[in-house]
Amino acid sequence: MSDKYVIGLDYGTLSGRALVVRVSDGAEMGTDVYEYPHAVMDRTLTAADNQKLPPDFALQSPADYIETLEHIIPGALKDAAIDPSDVIGIGLDVTSATVIACRSDGTPLCLLEDYADEPHAWVKLWKHHGAQDQADRIVKLAQARREPWLARYGGILSSEMLMPKVLETLEWAPRVYEATDVFCDALDWLTWQLTGELTFAAGDSGYKRMYQDGQYPSREFLRNLNPEFEDVFETKMDAPVLPLGGRVGGLTADFAARLGLPEGIAVASGNIDAHVTAAAIQAVENGQMTAILGTSACYIVPGPELKEVPGMFGVVDGGIVDGSWGFEAGQTAVGDIFAWFIDNCVPKSYADEAERRAISLHELLTEKCQDQEVGAHGLIGLDWHNGNRSVLADANLSGLLIGQALTTTPEDQYRALLESTAFGARTIIESFRNAGVAINELIVAGGLTKNTFLMQLLCDICRVPLSVGLTQQPGARGSAVFGAVAAGVYPDVKAASAAMGAKEEGVYQVDEERARLYDPLFAEYTTLHDYFGRGANPVMHRLKELRREAHIRAERKAGPLLRRQGDHSEDAWIPET
Amino acid sequence: MSDKYVIGLDYGTLSGRALVVRVSDGAEMGTDVYEYPHAVMDRTLTAADNQKLPPDFALQSPADYIETLEHIIPGALKDAAIDPSDVIGIGLDVTSATVIACRSDGTPLCLLEDYADEPHAWVKLWKHHGAQDQADRIVKLAQARREPWLARYGGILSSEMLMPKVLETLEWAPRVYEATDVFCDALDWLTWQLTGELTFAAGDSGYKRMYQDGQYPSREFLRNLNPEFEDVFETKMDAPVLPLGGRVGGLTADFAARLGLPEGIAVASGNIDAHVTAAAIQAVENGQMTAILGTSACYIVPGPELKEVPGMFGVVDGGIVDGSWGFEAGQTAVGDIFAWFIDNCVPKSYADEAERRAISLHELLTEKCQDQEVGAHGLIGLDWHNGNRSVLADANLSGLLIGQALTTTPEDQYRALLESTAFGARTIIESFRNAGVAINELIVAGGLTKNTFLMQLLCDICRVPLSVGLTQQPGARGSAVFGAVAAGVYPDVKAASAAMGAKEEGVYQVDEERARLYDPLFAEYTTLHDYFGRGANPVMHRLKELRREAHIRAERKAGPLLRRQGDHSEDAWIPET
Repeated sequence: MSDKYVIGLDYGTLSGRALVVRVSDGAEMGTDVYEYPHAVMDRTLTAADNQKLPPDFALQSPADYIETLEHIIPGALKDAAIDPSDVIGIGLDVTSATVIACRSDGTPLCLLEDYADEPHAWVKLWKHHGAQDQADRIVKLAQARREPWLARYGGILSSEMLMPKVLETLEWAPRVYEATDVFCDALDWLTWQLTGELTFAAGDSGYKRMYQDGQYPSREFLRNLNPEFEDVFETKMDAPVLPLGGRVGGLTADFAARLGLPEGIAVASGNIDAHVTAAAIQAVENGQMTAILGTSACYIVPGPELKEVPGMFGVVDGGIVDGSWGFEAGQTAVGDIFAWFIDNCVPKSYADEAERRAISLHELLTEKCQDQEVGAHGLIGLDWHNGNRSVLADANLSGLLIGQALTTTPEDQYRALLESTAFGARTIIESFRNAGVAINELIVAGGLTKNTFLMQLLCDICRVPLSVGLTQQPGARGSAVFGAVAAGVYPDVKAASAAMGAKEEGVYQVDEERARLYDPLFAEYTTLHDYFGRGANPVMHRLKELRREAHIRAERKAGPLLRRQGDHSEDAWIPET
Repeated sequence: MSDKYVIGLDYGTLSGRALVVRVSDGAEMGTDVYEYPHAVMDRTLTAADNQKLPPDFALQSPADYIETLEHIIPGALKDAAIDPSDVIGIGLDVTSATVIACRSDGTPLCLLEDYADEPHAWVKLWKHHGAQDQADRIVKLAQARREPWLARYGGILSSEMLMPKVLETLEWAPRVYEATDVFCDALDWLTWQLTGELTFAAGDSGYKRMYQDGQYPSREFLRNLNPEFEDVFETKMDAPVLPLGGRVGGLTADFAARLGLPEGIAVASGNIDAHVTAAAIQAVENGQMTAILGTSACYIVPGPELKEVPGMFGVVDGGIVDGSWGFEAGQTAVGDIFAWFIDNCVPKSYADEAERRAISLHELLTEKCQDQEVGAHGLIGLDWHNGNRSVLADANLSGLLIGQALTTTPEDQYRALLESTAFGARTIIESFRNAGVAINELIVAGGLTKNTFLMQLLCDICRVPLSVGLTQQPGARGSAVFGAVAAGVYPDVKAASAAMGAKEEGVYQVDEERARLYDPLFAEYTTLHDYFGRGANPVMHRLKELRREAHIRAERKAGPLLRRQGDHSEDAWIPET
């Protein structure tokens, strides 16, 4: 067994990566990465006729995914220098919900000449935000009808999920909707391509496709949303839902030849890019919370029973690992806030010092602020620069910094922003605990783990020890774990994760003095959080509304422009008829 | 008359300036400026034994004032190229309350060998903050005793006024207090020096020395503050109070010789540096508000009757011009906030662009933000980086910025800060109007008047037309106006101001569309202002307290340090015995 391998595929927003992993111990043998030729199409449809796209669109080309596949698998095999015949399985993860409209044979509509000039026929990337109007209507109707599944998503549906995106296609491009036999997420489309079998992965189906307790939203609900939407799941998503680690099928002869792999090897059901990390860093037992800390933050934790956690982003039976309920929460911006601060709020003298010393501005600011006593800067921030996902689920919130004096320094403000994100994390963790979901350990992964000062802050403020995932490729490594399960090497994901995942336990321990000193600051954070976030003073909403009106005035003065979808005012963008 | 002149003297925080002004039309003939050799002594007593000073001390040397006088009057005369025998009067203004402890002959104690090593014997500059404890006790006692004069100061006494500073001397340096025959403000000390006559100016006495309705605080009040303080006004401030523009006396032969001026020419009673501006820019009629906009902002306006204006900083009968009540309000930081932002919050790319184009960062940011639609940046700020003087009178408030997104630019934040200071000004103006004090015109002066974008913002947000004072030397020019009255050239200050002051009327007119669009933003400002400023959420106070505790922890870790006066904890600075 020591010389058998699986391939983990990790499809991100801009590139795809393959990792060859030894099934016995998870050793990373070789890797390769490839950038999607058309990247994200958010201004013009560069893969077709270069037409200008409406605001908020974010499309991709499915041909890019296949081209990527054909580069990274041979590349990773070469890098690993192993015998390809020793590869016994493939696992994969993709951003989600990244939605593809297909013919019954799996051909994406956008690759047919007849539909190539139709934006809605292309892949709607997770961050395509054209379906906000549809998402709002889904939530409103589900609230009014007291649909039981709504609570599983914290009472709100993001426009990033599958259902709003498909409804958007029906309403803005009915010809495309009509011609679509199957709507699926990219992760299911890829396993379909590789095996010829269409299945839907359980985790993604629960989190992104509204599949709960063995069923989709009811025909009645869908009819009330739009009469033509009534049978969308029955007729356009009619395929079995497979548990994570399940075997979709064997690799087709065609792809085996194109990729240089044995025909018939196991292809595991796909997974959401963030969720697959849990398996890579041994965070698959109940109470082990995976924290993926990068530009934004994703928190997932398995628990033994269904609990209603206010503000959680999703809870799905078998959503992280079969046999547990998978809870998900998130912060819409973490590293993005620090990057924004570095780009916009740090003076030249600091930039010059960092350059002179050949260190990054992050390092310089961390060095300048790390020895401060807790509370010495006199500031508190709210980490809502990109809205709040958990626990408030409100995209229209915004940032706040309070306490500035004429002596406030850049490092003071930087540290306050770091702390605010840790306060946001604590708010999430406390919300889980208060609802009866245990959090015993935080296992961190992602780009921000290299910021050891931030990790210690997180540990002290949340009062929870931190373990650190030991792979630099948590996505691809995790997908490999699922590939090994599908190949039958391990009986289940927990066993596979124990053998193939890796973490260092207890790397950060709580400093009790700092933890105690942070308590009153967290209390202030909570007061501000509730005041601005729970309706007492909806000033952030009003500022966004005033901002929107200001931009409309500016646009009117500048001449006519494409209008946002779902804006039903007179000058709205005109849909096809 | 066209060839007679007066000299206006303007003593600022770091330098003194003289201006030779023609009495017929206010023409500025010549000027000179001189920096105080010892500047502000806030760390060590550089004018004496170089001893380390406690935190919050800010001292000056009276000898510097005389040395300055001997430079700037001959210098300005030379620059003016006039015949000194045509000078018929002197007016002067000084920062206030800047307190001097003197012998009965006017000799400052600090210039006597016996007291030179005693910090409390030196001039306590207006921004000396060592008497916070005394100020707090004065307010507390006045509130408890319902002292009628307290309302004249908006219900609060700053530690910058005379009484706390003198009480501080009694309590921390009783030997100095004992040896003092006269406590007076620097403006009265200078006219005393020039004429040999000790008088107190009415304006300063009202605003800074608690002289109201013809009397000082009662013996009873003072006794309850401290038994030894009971007779402080009777015994150590026993001199007549003179109206503004009144003649203190004639220039002594000694000073006439030293300065190259005719003996016996009129010396007008002194004035507070900010207040004298009103006369320079023709803002001495009821309803004409002077706005001095610089690092901080001072608003003064004459009115026909006494009104209680919540949060006003002071109201004094004859305080600006004899015959009207003079109302004062202020903002603790305006230009200081913008300077802080420029120094701490603007990225290198902007600094490089400004340098390349040879413009200031203020100009660059103004250029980038000035064409935005109202509300387009989605931000609101509170302008409390240095506390709030009017209308909240709370030094422990701090700044706030709300609404940041990942797309927020430096110019967005800069504009929001500019707007916040205009919202603060509107809050003050509305407070006056609501109390029945008319504001018909705003006449602006000070360094910020060159920022035309800010002036238009102020005009639109406050919905009041702006006139612009036409002198670059509002202090010295205003003092010259009072000098001309004292010399008998004009019957009163109004007549003198009409002839010798200068302004351009209606330079900025309200843009009704922008004014209307700012109303909802001002409503949001007001909600935040009241929530954070009026006790609903005293988070800013708690942050300052946590900050203070953090600094104490840091100091303890670093070793013993001098402690703040009035901090009665075990490690407080030890007073002399």
